[in-house]
Parts: sequence; C-alpha cells; structure tokens
Amino acid sequence: MTGNATDTILLAVTGWDPDVWVSEFAKAAPKRKLVLNSTDKDKIRYALVWKQRQGSLAGLPNLDVIFSLGAGVDHIFHDQQIPDVPIVRIVSPDLTMRMSEYVVWQVLDHHRLGMRYRQQQGQRVWHEDRRQPAAHEVNVGILGLGVLGRDAAQKLRALGFRVSGWSRRLQTMEGITTYYGKDGLKDFLKDVDIVVCLLPLTPDTKSILSMSMFAQMKQHGPLGAPTLINAGRGGLQNEPDILAALDRGMLSAVTLDVFNREPLPKDSPLWTHPQVTITPHAAASSSPQALVPEIVAQIESFERGEPLKNIVDRAAQY
Amino acid sequence: MTGNATDTILLAVTGWDPDVWVSEFAKAAPKRKLVLNSTDKDKIRYALVWKQRQGSLAGLPNLDVIFSLGAGVDHIFHDQQIPDVPIVRIVSPDLTMRMSEYVVWQVLDHHRLGMRYRQQQGQRVWHEDRRQPAAHEVNVGILGLGVLGRDAAQKLRALGFRVSGWSRRLQTMEGITTYYGKDGLKDFLKDVDIVVCLLPLTPDTKSILSMSMFAQMKQHGPLGAPTLINAGRGGLQNEPDILAALDRGMLSAVTLDVFNREPLPKDSPLWTHPQVTITPHAAASSSPQALVPEIVAQIESFERGEPLKNIVDRAAQY
Ligand SMILES: NC(=O)c1ccc[n+]([C@@H]2O[C@H](COP(=O)([O-])OP(=O)(O)OC[C@H]3O[C@@H](n4cnc5c(N)ncnc54)[C@H](OP(=O)(O)O)[C@@H]3O)[C@@H](O)[C@H]2O)c1
Ligand SMILES: NC(=O)c1ccc[n+]([C@@H]2O[C@H](COP(=O)([O-])OP(=O)(O)OC[C@H]3O[C@@H](n4cnc5c(N)ncnc54)[C@H](OP(=O)(O)O)[C@@H]3O)[C@@H](O)[C@H]2O)c1
Repeated sequence: MTGNATDTILLAVTGWDPDVWVSEFAKAAPKRKLVLNSTDKDKIRYALVWKQRQGSLAGLPNLDVIFSLGAGVDHIFHDQQIPDVPIVRIVSPDLTMRMSEYVVWQVLDHHRLGMRYRQQQGQRVWHEDRRQPAAHEVNVGILGLGVLGRDAAQKLRALGFRVSGWSRRLQTMEGITTYYGKDGLKDFLKDVDIVVCLLPLTPDTKSILSMSMFAQMKQHGPLGAPTLINAGRGGLQNEPDILAALDRGMLSAVTLDVFNREPLPKDSPLWTHPQVTITPHAAASSSPQALVPEIVAQIESFERGEPLKNIVDRAAQY
Repeated sequence: MTGNATDTILLAVTGWDPDVWVSEFAKAAPKRKLVLNSTDKDKIRYALVWKQRQGSLAGLPNLDVIFSLGAGVDHIFHDQQIPDVPIVRIVSPDLTMRMSEYVVWQVLDHHRLGMRYRQQQGQRVWHEDRRQPAAHEVNVGILGLGVLGRDAAQKLRALGFRVSGWSRRLQTMEGITTYYGKDGLKDFLKDVDIVVCLLPLTPDTKSILSMSMFAQMKQHGPLGAPTLINAGRGGLQNEPDILAALDRGMLSAVTLDVFNREPLPKDSPLWTHPQVTITPHAAASSSPQALVPEIVAQIESFERGEPLKNIVDRAAQY
C-alpha cells in the first residue's frame, strides 16, 4: 500500500479533451507522471476517469484508487470490468456553488415568470402580472438531498421559498420537510410546485421522471401545474413523457440541463417547445483548475495513510 | 393630535385601480372611512397616495400623515402643494423579498449566460461555454444601500459573489466593500462587473445612469464589459445613452424594470435590442394584501402616541 510520488496516474477519459487536465496536473503535481493509456500496467496506481473505455481499468495489478472526474459516477458503471478498489467521486465547493447558482437561477426564472416576460418583450407588450405569488406560497421540492441537493435547499430557503426534499434514506434538515424511500415519494409529490431533480443515475432512479411521477404531482398550485428542473442526469428522464405532460398541461414548464443523448440531437422536439428551457449540460461544469488541486490533495493524504473521502457505495452505485 | 378611529382616510391615486386598495382597507380596518376625493376636507386625517393629482393634498386642515403606497416617494414630490406633515413610505418584508428575488434572478441570468443559451436553443446549437467565471470572480456593485440594496447585497453574498455598494452617506456592511458620496463613486465604478441600481429618484440621482457613468466602469471583467440592472426608477437612466453604450460595447447587457415613460412606448428601440431584458415595472409590486395591514398597524400605533416609522427626509427627497 505504500507508494511514492513517482507512481503513475492513468487519465482514462472519452468525450473530453484531456489536454487541460494534463496541464493542470503538471502544475499541481509536477513530479507525478500522468499517462493517457495503460501500456506500463504495473506502474499505474491511480486512475482518473470520465466515461472510460470498457476494460481500460482491467489488469492493473497495483491500482489503488479510481477517481471520477465528475460528481456523478454513472459513467463508470457501464464498464463490467472495474477493479475492486475504492471509487472516489468529486465533492467540491466550486462545483456545489455552481449547481446551486443554476438551481436558484432556474427556480427564479419560473417563479418570476421569465418565459412570459420574454414572450411579451418579443411582442412589445407591457403587461404586469399582479397575481405573482410570494416565495413562501411556493413549495420547491428537491429530489435528492445529497451534497448538491442540500446546498440548493438551503439557498432556496434563504430566499423565502418553502422547501421539501426526498432521499433514499431518512435525512433531516432544519426548516425543510423531508421524505424518503419509495413510500415517501407519493407524499412528497402531492405538495410540490417546482420539482428540482438532483438525483444520481442508478438502476433505482433510471427514468424516474416519467408520466407515472407527473400524474402524482399537485396540479393546482400558485403557478398552475408544476414545473420540472432536471440537472441530475439525462437517464433520469423519459423525454417523450415530459413532452406529453407539457402538452396535456400536467407540467407547466421544464428546464433541462441533461439529456438521454448529449449533445441533444438537432431533431429533438425539446429544442423548440415554448415551455422548455435547454442548457447544454452546463449546470455545474467541473473546472479542472478547481478540481485538480483537490484530487492531488486527496492522493497526498491517502499516501500519508489518511482515509479516502467521498467513496462511492458500489451496491447503491452512487 | 388625538383623534379617533372614525377619522377619514383619503386615497389619492392615479394610474392605479383604487378598488383593490378600498376592499383591502374594508377588510383590515372596517370601521374607518376611506374616500377617493377630499370633499369633506376637515375630516381627513390621513392620506394614502400614489402619483396624487397636483394640489389634491392642499387645504386639509387636519391632515396628520401622508402614506406613500410605494417604497419610492418621487411620485409625491412633483406636487408643489404638499402640506408640511410627515410623509411615511413603505418598508415591507414582502416588498423587500420580491425585490431581492428580482435582483438575484437577473444577476444570475447574466452571470450564467442566460441570453446566450436562449439564443443557442433557438438555433438548436449545443455549445457549453467552459470559461464560465465562478461567482467569487464577479463583483456585483449595488447603487443604493438602503432597505432594498442591503437585503439584495446579503443574498448575493450568500451565493458567493463579491459585492460592493454605494450610498450617499457612509454605510458599513459585513463582507461588503462600501463607497459613498460623489467622491466614492469613481472608485466604486472601477471595480464593478454587474451594476444593480436600487437608488431612489431624487434631484441628485436623476439620469445618473448615463454615458459619463458608463465611461468610468471597468471594461474588461470576467464577463467582458459590465452589465447594468436598473430596478430603481426610470428617471435614473438616460435611455439613449444606454443604447449607445450597448452598441459601442461599453455595456455587455442590460436589464430594465423601469423606464422614463411607462408603459414603455411601442416604438422604443429597447424592446428589440438583443442585449436588453425588459420587465414591466414588476420587480417588486406592492401587494395590497400585504401592505394594507402594515399601513393600518402604523396608523394604530400612531394613534397610541408611538413615533411613526420610515419617515421620508424632505430635504433629500427619499
Ligand atoms: N448537470 C450537471 O452539470 C451536474 C454536475 C454535477 C453533478 N450532477 C449530478 O448530480 C447528482 C447528485 O450529486 P450529489 O453530489 O448531490 O450526490 P450525492 O451526495 O451522492 O446525493 C445523492 C442524493 O440522491 C439520493 N438518492 C439516491 N438514490 C436514490 C433513490 N433510489 N431514491 C431516493 N433518493 C435517492 C441520495 O439519498 P441518500 O441521502 O439517502 O443517500 C442522496 O440524497 C450526481 O450524481 C450527478 O449525476 C450533475
Ligand atoms: N421597480 C420596482 O418595482 C420598485 C419597487 C420598490 C422600490 N423601488 C425603488 O427602489 C428605491 C430604493 O428603495 P429603498 O427602500 O432601498 O430606499 P432607501 O431605504 O431610502 O435607500 C436608498 C439608498 O440610496 C442611497 N442614495 C440616495 N440618494 C443618493 C445619492 N445622491 N448618492 C448616493 N446614494 C444615494 C441612500 O443613501 P444613504 O444610505 O446614505 O441614505 C440609500 O442607501 C425606491 O426609492 C424606489 O424608487 C422600485
């Protein structure tokens, strides 16, 4: 288990340009060797991964830790040959802050009638809507009370919203109504005006944002039908169901940062739907400048014999 | 100075439908008489005003207090015949909360590239901008550190922004860099990325948002040229100067809730400018449901001999 600072780090990424990670590593840990493929298999002690190629982590006899380059780890589990070493995910104040910005921004855009005012502006129409509800009349429900969900919940509370949350196991938070497990979901949905999804994508949560969920939501809140914001993963949502729910008035508006296929295909009807806001998986980008020093610090503390933080539960897959 | 609960209240408003105020008063103070014009001049003890007709407050021998139905009082001072009694303005948690929502919403919309993403969506373009600055790299400068400016400042701080503020007299606030007076304005403007105007309209602040101010602003911040948000009053801004500054790249984007003429005339070039967001004086509407009980409570405490709160400084006109 002991090692030295010259052990090799494997960067196994697809879909991302590795250059910026390489250069940030060179700055943060100039003495460490970073490779883009595993030719020298027995030298590799750490792997940094983002959608690694199937099998690219197999047959590394001295691998000690896998670091996910994102907060989510669903991109790792599609690979059936992941060695049995700890998987560490990103928990970073920088990322959390960005996600909460995104959530607050989009909640306010719906709450403050952004779509309506932009439409009016396009038609040069001056029409104030005096029936605007106060924040305390609106309940924002957060699916997922993890690192990201809890921070967003607190920031929404500070703006005056009522906030509730749903998690797998019981969680408690000052000033926030919490529900948990399959049984708690029904009650959570009954009282929600704006639903923010910050769940991880796992076998249990796949396609959870579907018609059967929308049908359980309160339909006559202060904003009319409920609004959905998904900044978790695209696999959490059934896109045809979202479009159908919008068209039937079961959802009044939707913000999506993530999609089943990314980039979102040009012919997706989501692009042009008047009640849909699309951002290109930009809710909380991992900034290599902020994240690399945090990973290096984890490696160093691990080498001093300290326990790893933010280890993924393999059974739960998050 | 003593009176009784049967004294008459004059509601002197133009441009607003008085009905909702009348019915809220009937609910909150059913025994008090509310009139819409001053026929019985010597019975009138209180006046509630919004853009009152010139002279409509003159010749009321028993008038004790003027209540402004808005947070701003510029709409009162166009009248040269305002009796020399205390003018009380609205300071209400409901209004403050709504204004801070608006400010946070629009700051985030600029910070998180809302305009760019909406434009990309319109063209079905998926393009994430990875150079997105963190909140702590962006300085939001608030013109006016009164009831509204201070609350907005705190909420922006809580989201991680750097925040500075400018006022007439020295104000101090934990974690916020403050400037004051004409001399302080230059230094304030040198370091600001997003300027939020929450000033009152007075002889000193009229047309302050003009080319001479824009020319003093930092030009190369993390968001490029600075962004302007005005939710104070339209008279604070020179609209042709704003358009010229946008077109010369001295301002990168603008959000305006208030205008020199409201409703904004159909032929204003502001409506269609791609860098301009327009809302119809809706940043923080006075909700009669929330405000009337607060005014009634002030009247009752005044009649118990307690001092009036939120009295306007006549010399400063706010
Ligand atoms: N769009 C973006 O740019 C972006 C950026 C970063 C992250 N993300 C996504 O955000 C997700 C959440 O991140 P995080 O750091 O907050 O994760 P986290 O700390 O692991 O929290 C996950 C939360 O989801 C709950 N959960 C998991 N499975 C559940 C189930 N079957 N039923 C009910 N609740 C369940 C967990 O419940 P317990 O509390 O009971 O464990 C926990 O509260 C990531 O997995 C990632 O996919 C997206
Ligand atoms: N768009 C909307 O829907 C809406 C709704 C409500 C209110 N408003 C507007 O918002 C304005 C502000 O409300 P508020 O309740 O925050 O007012 P406030 O408590 O009276 O605060 C005014 C602030 O502006 C500063 N100020 C005034 N004159 C100045 C000058 N010449 N130079 C520098 N600073 C100056 C004051 O400085 P000091 O601290 O030194 O006194 C104070 O910090 C109102 O007047 C109203 O016009 C708009």
